Amino acid sequence: MVSHGIRERFGRLRRRGGRGPERDERKLRALVADALGRHATTTKRAGAATIAEAYVAGDDEWRRRFFRMLVDEFWTAPDAVAAELEACRAAPPGDRRAERRLRDALTPPAIGLLSSFSGLEGGVKLLVDLRADLLGLAAGDPDLAELDEELRRHLATLFDIGLLELRRITWDAPASLLEKLIEYEAVHAIDSWADLKNRLDSDRRCYAFFHPSMPDEPLVFVEIALTAGIATELESLLDESAPELNAGRADTAVFYSISNCQPGLAGVNLGNALIKQVVDRLRGELDHVRHYVTLSPIPGFRAWLEDELRTGDLPAREAELLPAQPGRVLARLADAGWDADEAIRPALLTLCARYLTTQRDGRVVDPVANFHLANGASVERLNWLADPSAAGRERSVGIMANYRYDPDRIMERAEAYVARGEVAMSDAVRQLLAG
Amino acid sequence: MVSHGIRERFGRLRRRGGRGPERDERKLRALVADALGRHATTTKRAGAATIAEAYVAGDDEWRRRFFRMLVDEFWTAPDAVAAELEACRAAPPGDRRAERRLRDALTPPAIGLLSSFSGLEGGVKLLVDLRADLLGLAAGDPDLAELDEELRRHLATLFDIGLLELRRITWDAPASLLEKLIEYEAVHAIDSWADLKNRLDSDRRCYAFFHPSMPDEPLVFVEIALTAGIATELESLLDESAPELNAGRADTAVFYSISNCQPGLAGVNLGNALIKQVVDRLRGELDHVRHYVTLSPIPGFRAWLEDELRTGDLPAREAELLPAQPGRVLARLADAGWDADEAIRPALLTLCARYLTTQRDGRVVDPVANFHLANGASVERLNWLADPSAAGRERSVGIMANYRYDPDRIMERAEAYVARGEVAMSDAVRQLLAG
Amino acid sequence: MVSHGIRERFGRLRRRGGRGPERDERKLRALVADALGRHATTTKRAGAATIAEAYVAGDDEWRRRFFRMLVDEFWTAPDAVAAELEACRAAPPGDRRAERRLRDALTPPAIGLLSSFSGLEGGVKLLVDLRADLLGLAAGDPDLAELDEELRRHLATLFDIGLLELRRITWDAPASLLEKLIEYEAVHAIDSWADLKNRLDSDRRCYAFFHPSMPDEPLVFVEIALTAGIATELESLLDESAPELNAGRADTAVFYSISNCQPGLAGVNLGNALIKQVVDRLRGELDHVRHYVTLSPIPGFRAWLEDELRTGDLPAREAELLPAQPGRVLARLADAGWDADEAIRPALLTLCARYLTTQRDGRVVDPVANFHLANGASVERLNWLADPSAAGRERSVGIMANYRYDPDRIMERAEAYVARGEVAMSDAVRQLLAG
Amino acid sequence: MVSHGIRERFGRLRRRGGRGPERDERKLRALVADALGRHATTTKRAGAATIAEAYVAGDDEWRRRFFRMLVDEFWTAPDAVAAELEACRAAPPGDRRAERRLRDALTPPAIGLLSSFSGLEGGVKLLVDLRADLLGLAAGDPDLAELDEELRRHLATLFDIGLLELRRITWDAPASLLEKLIEYEAVHAIDSWADLKNRLDSDRRCYAFFHPSMPDEPLVFVEIALTAGIATELESLLDESAPELNAGRADTAVFYSISNCQPGLAGVNLGNALIKQVVDRLRGELDHVRHYVTLSPIPGFRAWLEDELRTGDLPAREAELLPAQPGRVLARLADAGWDADEAIRPALLTLCARYLTTQRDGRVVDPVANFHLANGASVERLNWLADPSAAGRERSVGIMANYRYDPDRIMERAEAYVARGEVAMSDAVRQLLAG
Repeated sequence: MVSHGIRERFGRLRRRGGRGPERDERKLRALVADALGRHATTTKRAGAATIAEAYVAGDDEWRRRFFRMLVDEFWTAPDAVAAELEACRAAPPGDRRAERRLRDALTPPAIGLLSSFSGLEGGVKLLVDLRADLLGLAAGDPDLAELDEELRRHLATLFDIGLLELRRITWDAPASLLEKLIEYEAVHAIDSWADLKNRLDSDRRCYAFFHPSMPDEPLVFVEIALTAGIATELESLLDESAPELNAGRADTAVFYSISNCQPGLAGVNLGNALIKQVVDRLRGELDHVRHYVTLSPIPGFRAWLEDELRTGDLPAREAELLPAQPGRVLARLADAGWDADEAIRPALLTLCARYLTTQRDGRVVDPVANFHLANGASVERLNWLADPSAAGRERSVGIMANYRYDPDRIMERAEAYVARGEVAMSDAVRQLLAG
Repeated sequence: MVSHGIRERFGRLRRRGGRGPERDERKLRALVADALGRHATTTKRAGAATIAEAYVAGDDEWRRRFFRMLVDEFWTAPDAVAAELEACRAAPPGDRRAERRLRDALTPPAIGLLSSFSGLEGGVKLLVDLRADLLGLAAGDPDLAELDEELRRHLATLFDIGLLELRRITWDAPASLLEKLIEYEAVHAIDSWADLKNRLDSDRRCYAFFHPSMPDEPLVFVEIALTAGIATELESLLDESAPELNAGRADTAVFYSISNCQPGLAGVNLGNALIKQVVDRLRGELDHVRHYVTLSPIPGFRAWLEDELRTGDLPAREAELLPAQPGRVLARLADAGWDADEAIRPALLTLCARYLTTQRDGRVVDPVANFHLANGASVERLNWLADPSAAGRERSVGIMANYRYDPDRIMERAEAYVARGEVAMSDAVRQLLAG
Repeated sequence: MVSHGIRERFGRLRRRGGRGPERDERKLRALVADALGRHATTTKRAGAATIAEAYVAGDDEWRRRFFRMLVDEFWTAPDAVAAELEACRAAPPGDRRAERRLRDALTPPAIGLLSSFSGLEGGVKLLVDLRADLLGLAAGDPDLAELDEELRRHLATLFDIGLLELRRITWDAPASLLEKLIEYEAVHAIDSWADLKNRLDSDRRCYAFFHPSMPDEPLVFVEIALTAGIATELESLLDESAPELNAGRADTAVFYSISNCQPGLAGVNLGNALIKQVVDRLRGELDHVRHYVTLSPIPGFRAWLEDELRTGDLPAREAELLPAQPGRVLARLADAGWDADEAIRPALLTLCARYLTTQRDGRVVDPVANFHLANGASVERLNWLADPSAAGRERSVGIMANYRYDPDRIMERAEAYVARGEVAMSDAVRQLLAG
Repeated sequence: MVSHGIRERFGRLRRRGGRGPERDERKLRALVADALGRHATTTKRAGAATIAEAYVAGDDEWRRRFFRMLVDEFWTAPDAVAAELEACRAAPPGDRRAERRLRDALTPPAIGLLSSFSGLEGGVKLLVDLRADLLGLAAGDPDLAELDEELRRHLATLFDIGLLELRRITWDAPASLLEKLIEYEAVHAIDSWADLKNRLDSDRRCYAFFHPSMPDEPLVFVEIALTAGIATELESLLDESAPELNAGRADTAVFYSISNCQPGLAGVNLGNALIKQVVDRLRGELDHVRHYVTLSPIPGFRAWLEDELRTGDLPAREAELLPAQPGRVLARLADAGWDADEAIRPALLTLCARYLTTQRDGRVVDPVANFHLANGASVERLNWLADPSAAGRERSVGIMANYRYDPDRIMERAEAYVARGEVAMSDAVRQLLAG
């Protein structure tokens, strides 16, 4: 961790931007080659700093060329790889030293260069932001995707759970931090400071993970409402004028929003540990709370549903539940308001239950469902018109799901799902599926 | 970073010790196999926790068997390695995907298991202590040395400079922390709390690196005296009754002791960055200080000197300086007191200068000299009888060295030494060498 | 200072309110008499706590009766006063013991009771709020005004400058604290969180005093803009879209708003020390800033001006400057917009200069001018249409004043003004006065 | 509260000392008269600062003359007192305004000057130290004693319980603070850092009050041992090699040492609130602890006992218990070792019980007993040879007392003792008294 003034260094450069660093391809190559050719720790670090500064000052095109050059020219050395490969073949099977030498030859120096950025002042945040850039460029480019995968692994170690700090965020937190929650909230947008204050009331909880090298930047945060009974719709949770519940009377903690804040940490699973640690902490603090459930969106349901209706190839049981022909139902779903029709409810809930349990390659297709099931939750309940907002109707014809975290069964359920694809669910959901 | 109570978890178990965990070889194997066979993040972490607890409770023999089993049974899978090896040979040269798959196959699962310990509560400290155990066992066992090297690399990332916090330590620091300085001081033992307080006076500085997951544990610390002129002997620096210098009048910062605190971090070079950052900080804070020098022990000189005298094969110039035949000088060095003889001084200083610049495999043989030269320092001066303690006479017939860090030349000197073996030195030392 | 949870105690009761405590006059009397009759420190404190709780729960009428009872029945004891009075007369002049005994007899026990509230959990804040109540009731009641004066003195000791902490407030401060700035800003209302953020930009400073027993409650705060040149109008300072000035280029610190936050501390002058300490701190931190000025409202000018115009009895010089007869000018001032007429400007600025230097009972009549002059400032400049808001026109036909704090002359000017009524002013203002 | 650097100001001057400030009586008088004659808040404060600096630099003789001058020349104004005295007599009885004016006339300006020191940087600590000086000089000088009493009252307000912070002190506290515990421990001297560490073990508690303007200076602290059963002797509590008790098993908190740290706060009772708040805190934290007792010295017993034996006028019951004539017992008490004689035990314990309950002017004569009884404790038990140290034998022939704080009866007992002299005691002590 570095002093505040110093930590800001790369941030400041970043804001200045567009200074136009070396665009000459040969000079860029020389810069990288020089940095990788240094021998002493001190000079290596200085070389990395020079490149990091050029990166920060560089524009998008500069960055793309930089990454391309890394994979094209500073990847593994074919001769060295070939030599160690042969040495390994010649060695007795399982020769640890030969294997390690081969592995070292297979490790691209480009990765070493990027990894060393984290040792610079402000470098951890720089690396996270750099990966966000890279992710954008790597789409459709398998070479850059390899570079990205290497960087993801390095970040996964740097953001090891053992290094993170779980902090509760309240209305006493710095305004500069709370402002970021407003910016990063990805599930249910925070409209105003009054909306935010409501979400930090005494019957609410908000927790986030922080990394010691980026102490002012939340990595991922979760918003929780303490309620009497399981919340089945969103509106009352977000109603700023609703009275606060005496937290001592609540028996349920509803996790109604989880947002990742750092695009550069995509693929580094922090949400899993966040939920686990928050459940543990709430268990220690709130004696009366016995239920841990989410109130979650179902992002892919409507698209899947429309596909199902379009093909018209529904199981008999579902077809019977529909109040009309699939094609007509599909057509009418486009009308505003029609999706609120009670007549359509039984069919849509049943279809939704099927959607949530539909698997491909051993995991359910809905990403939110997959996240919670892999964390050890069960599908608890589907709620009709729980999110009647335009976004909610667009995502899932307004249906939301409760997933339940039963602290005593998290382990067993997580393993059963991830290893064997077994989806845990409540009796109510099972009955929906059974029709 | 985890809460204090939780962080203590493994510490507490450790103190209990000797509970006698599973000694049955098969059961231990099953335990490890089970942990490595888990699929969900949550259950994997629980599996690692089970093994970590067993490790903490285990005795030395248990631990040895555990490490042995890791290298013997949970190393790479020969079939998978062979298959990927062939795939890689068959692929076009530089095929990134094939190379990565081979590299993954060459990565022992045992490493993944140990690495995951850092995600447990108190796990970072556990991992550091575990490596200290492993280092002891790996001496003379090349297989365990491979495991150790893997662990060292993982720790080098977890203890990346970008994650460390440089803190000044004063007499206002917690007693529980200061107690550790007393324990860890490796160069000049701290006798008492009064001795310690003297070393934290207003004309002294003490800095240490800390890791956010072990916030109460110094990793490496340096003790500095602010002086008027370069200190040439130790006694006055450690004299508790000496008056404090007004820090505003000092022109020199003397780094007189650097101690590593965590045996498990051996080979993770933190001292380099510590010196660099401390010099930078002092430059920012103390306008009048312009000289940054060490007062350092010369641990290997006496043994080397005795060898030289024994073989008697001295350069003519040195032989001339000696007041007697090498053999007689050698014999008389064994007498207490004789080494303080002024007559022997010119020859010994000259020999010492040669010793400090003697290289083998591109580095000077004295480890302290190698450390400072690789960091970009120069050999500034040799000081006769600077450390007249028994230890000092035993190490280096009482001679100590000043190394100088010239902020403007650190880079160039570090690179010249590490890349090309060029040893920077002052004119005075050069003259000693030239006789 | 007490733990947070405990400090909240009286606050929580306060919110509940209206529980209807003892309204029976005799019971209230018994309660107070009982508390005042206790002997042991512990039981006295418990007695005070009982009354404090009744006070918090009591409604306005209860509180009025409580204060009335204190002055009527728990004031000094006539017999004791008479006895000590005679003893003092009989004693030799200047007999210290007799004088102290008389003074003690003249100290009402009611004061001791209220003073002891500060020793309760949350009691310091309670006492401040209680005085706010009392101030409201004491208007027009000389007996309660005596009680209020006693309480003011006790609070002046409890809020001794030596106990207060000066803190800079930035956008990193807790939202719960910043919210209070929005609430308490008394001079130029803060419209929104964006407005507030603008006032905490890098070219702004905000400082407040805090008391250790009310660490979350600002007592008085000042808002400062760092500018190049003396700001002569308000709008640009409050313009959220104006670019930030690089703080290193500013040569002037403009104190444009000072707000007291605690009505119960009226008459306890904290603003004086706040300005003094802030000027000292800015001098230490900002080398380039050499001018310390305010941009201040002139609250009483328009009322005074209208009086002057109504009586029509203006000095010849001012009458000449007026573009029309005083009566007509008065009539036309009522028109919106007319006060912006440039023709009227010379006369109004001259009249304003006279207003600001008009004294009654040895102090200038404008309260803001009196505050700054007593603190050692001089009248620097009058700014035409500096505050064209409705409030600004209503207060002072839009004119604002700059007062200058010259660090080297604060002492001399403060003493000259307070002791001898000498008003310091710039040449420009002197010329305005001279016509 | 002021910034650290600034707070040190007077401390630094103090160390320099002996600069020889103005010794000329007339100049000193002019200095004080000037400061008291200033009008503006700012200049008054500067005047006070000048005198405070002279005070700090002054030697003992200077300080004595300064205090003397304050009581002689800056006390009340006889004419003003006489005038207000007559006005008060002429006014109707109970005229609040006249009474206040008289009271103001009776308030010496000297007090105002000293009181204003607390508003200076570092002034609160200065005032505490100044009073320590004054206390020494006031012994036997009734005029200075009046000045001291005024200062004591002002400090009692500045050190109001509501302003103090109760902090637990552990081995994690700054060494610079712990060093002060070693210095201030007044009851059972702390021999070494190892002794101190033992007193901060997990089965110990140490709490202190701090004032926000002197955050590094403990005011009063208490040392507590958590034990199974009531500790009846000191040695095992202070034995560094004794094993720690698992704090969860303790049923008793033994307060074995209470030390005041600031001589200048003599007569400002902080110990009472310290014990009360610590008992409250322990009740909240340690469920199993149900007994709160002290293990206390009996400082005046031996002197009283020797008097009793000398006069020989013992009650029959006690005379019978003595193994010999009072005169011979007295003579033999002088022998080392004899006081450990079991034969003398019944008589001495009975005499001690009588001593502890002997009253003069409504309070028991033993100061420690009076302190605890006034706080609401009862005399629980007398322990033979509980403190066999030389100091313990000298104070109380080795006997120590347990006083018990029963949380439910503290109020009633404190009031009964202070108001009516009723001494609460256990049945065991009552039986001792009854013979």
